[in-house]
Amino acid sequence: MAKINNNYLKLPGSYLFSTIAKKVKTYGEANPDKEIIRLGIGDVTQPIAPDIIKALHAAVDEMGNADTFRGYAPDLGYDFLRHAIAEFDFKSRGCDISEDEIFVSDGAKCDCGNIQEIFSTDNVIAVCDPVYPVYVDSNVMAGRTGKYDDELKQFKGVIYMPCTKENDFVPEFPSEVPDLIYLCFPNNPTGTVIKKNQLQAWVDYALKNGSVILYDAAYEAYISEEDVPHSIYECEGAYDCAIELRSFSKTAGFTGLRLGYTVIPKRLKVDGTALWDLWARRHGTKYNGAPYIVQRAGEAVYSEEGRKQITAQIAYYMENAKLILNGLKDLGYEAFGGVNAPYIWLHTPDGMTSWEFFDHLLEKANVVGTPGVGFGPHGENYFRLTAFGSRENTIKAMERFKAL
Amino acid sequence: MAKINNNYLKLPGSYLFSTIAKKVKTYGEANPDKEIIRLGIGDVTQPIAPDIIKALHAAVDEMGNADTFRGYAPDLGYDFLRHAIAEFDFKSRGCDISEDEIFVSDGAKCDCGNIQEIFSTDNVIAVCDPVYPVYVDSNVMAGRTGKYDDELKQFKGVIYMPCTKENDFVPEFPSEVPDLIYLCFPNNPTGTVIKKNQLQAWVDYALKNGSVILYDAAYEAYISEEDVPHSIYECEGAYDCAIELRSFSKTAGFTGLRLGYTVIPKRLKVDGTALWDLWARRHGTKYNGAPYIVQRAGEAVYSEEGRKQITAQIAYYMENAKLILNGLKDLGYEAFGGVNAPYIWLHTPDGMTSWEFFDHLLEKANVVGTPGVGFGPHGENYFRLTAFGSRENTIKAMERFKAL
Repeated sequence: MAKINNNYLKLPGSYLFSTIAKKVKTYGEANPDKEIIRLGIGDVTQPIAPDIIKALHAAVDEMGNADTFRGYAPDLGYDFLRHAIAEFDFKSRGCDISEDEIFVSDGAKCDCGNIQEIFSTDNVIAVCDPVYPVYVDSNVMAGRTGKYDDELKQFKGVIYMPCTKENDFVPEFPSEVPDLIYLCFPNNPTGTVIKKNQLQAWVDYALKNGSVILYDAAYEAYISEEDVPHSIYECEGAYDCAIELRSFSKTAGFTGLRLGYTVIPKRLKVDGTALWDLWARRHGTKYNGAPYIVQRAGEAVYSEEGRKQITAQIAYYMENAKLILNGLKDLGYEAFGGVNAPYIWLHTPDGMTSWEFFDHLLEKANVVGTPGVGFGPHGENYFRLTAFGSRENTIKAMERFKAL
Repeated sequence: MAKINNNYLKLPGSYLFSTIAKKVKTYGEANPDKEIIRLGIGDVTQPIAPDIIKALHAAVDEMGNADTFRGYAPDLGYDFLRHAIAEFDFKSRGCDISEDEIFVSDGAKCDCGNIQEIFSTDNVIAVCDPVYPVYVDSNVMAGRTGKYDDELKQFKGVIYMPCTKENDFVPEFPSEVPDLIYLCFPNNPTGTVIKKNQLQAWVDYALKNGSVILYDAAYEAYISEEDVPHSIYECEGAYDCAIELRSFSKTAGFTGLRLGYTVIPKRLKVDGTALWDLWARRHGTKYNGAPYIVQRAGEAVYSEEGRKQITAQIAYYMENAKLILNGLKDLGYEAFGGVNAPYIWLHTPDGMTSWEFFDHLLEKANVVGTPGVGFGPHGENYFRLTAFGSRENTIKAMERFKAL
């Protein structure tokens, strides 16, 4: 008699963005004359840059020709892409990461969800609160947590590290030592960052305690300030305690193309076993490589023209971020992030809950954002706006804020 | 202190195809004048068909234009593709599968590896022997098996169902009742099939015992004979006990493009829980959809021109299969498969082991195949050849067999 994985039943009802989508749909249907501006879900809106499109077309042509057709890709990614990544994302910043420590995948969401598999189910994880839901949910599914506490809005057996304006959105060391520590900087949802010396302290903490840091740097390309690390491998000792997860989604608008990668230094060992070997085994057994054409697109991101075009796209979004951040501040809101990340995290006015502010904004301004509490209990009274809209919509949204 | 997933350590050393690759490399380096023909790994060689290439280019152009750019895809796949799949692969064959029961993914290998996650770790699995290694290995990693027995070459706690010429390569009901039953027809590696009444008996068995069948139909497009089911849903009652996994890799040469899908009927329940809900939750949490451009390519597979071109490609490979099968039989080999599948499964002559025959064939004929024992102990004394080579190489390989 087959039995289901009961851990799935611990997950509370509906996913944040489905709830938002339903609310927006209901409002839209009841108010067909209103023009709704969506600054909620973190999806890009700019098209893929011209030189990447050129690379895609060229690769498609190769696939249509018997002499240049490519079948199964190497499990860990094509050398041309792994080489470009190692050179531009790591060696250029002084990080000693070689191309065979890069595992190419079809996106950071999959990697974030799957990476926990190589660890024992009795590891205790620590996450920031608020947090990107995939870290916790994937661990719930694997049985690495207890039940969901409806009152606390937290899973038992998980260490939540509050990140609020009181601690500048940088987690403090928890009282219980975690085995696996998820950190994401520049942060989703808060848009805030960690300074190099603060990240170094976390690396030292992990080394001292034998913990492994799972470092999600999906928004690295948005960093504009000095002294903000682009990679955890800029910290001393990180090769021995940290895995880094990266994405092309926000760097180059690949949300619909799907490309990411994970870095596992070969020297990173747990219990004498190289985590590289385990992750390679997982790739070999349960994955068959990212599409050749998409890997060629990824390579083009690192070409001279590609980099120029990507930089311009990011600058476009960050101009939106500036408009939102300064606009909110001018209106007297407490707002954070938006300088090194495409997210602006505002504190809701007048003691409104996150969902009250969501409804208020949807109904009065026809602007959609994301309720902070959807990312965890310490996101209550916060609200996320994204810089991924068009300039026109961003300006319009800020005018509507003014009129609120 | 982090701890690794020790289940990974149960997996024996090296992956079948890496071992083959190393042996071939060593031989090639020692004999640089020899021209090696590869009929080993099951990768296609024909380029992507013209109308699919056209669809890819069109979709790439859409991604480069702000008005038609697509970001995150729907988790479960675009409706245009799910609709085409439901119509052409199921409704046209009388199967009552609707488009929202189709989960689009980046390939059947991922789906085959991941599907076990929605079941409890204390389910007992049954697999054919020989078998595609992903079914067992992914269950080993999840902790659903005991240790590997070096002598038996089997994992403890797994039910192996021998498939040999003695039972026409169709598994018999095991003495212990399994919870999850992996079946793959047309079969990899044997190239043999199951008749409709035989598959119906398995469906009845699963219904009677509350087991779930995981039915891998990746090679369905190669079926040429009547009375061989293309989908398990052609059997009565299968909606209540079976999940079907499908691939575009062998159907349309997508090994390097990555596209597949899983079918879970909404009515399929275990312990009162719809498996559809669990798999949807997994997609939502740990997956972000197949690339838009690849899904458009998948749609083109079902267009009128696309279907014609695909049919011609499959006919090309199946002509190779015929040349191999008949060639071997003419030479006095016992050979199987090759009529409804692109694989030919031969019984090694003179009592040679699978690896002895591998070395013999590599050294004397410079032809690479796959040792049957690599797929399980009952694959010993068998050997797999694939029909995916070029016509020229296939003919040349058979001439070399003749000269052996």
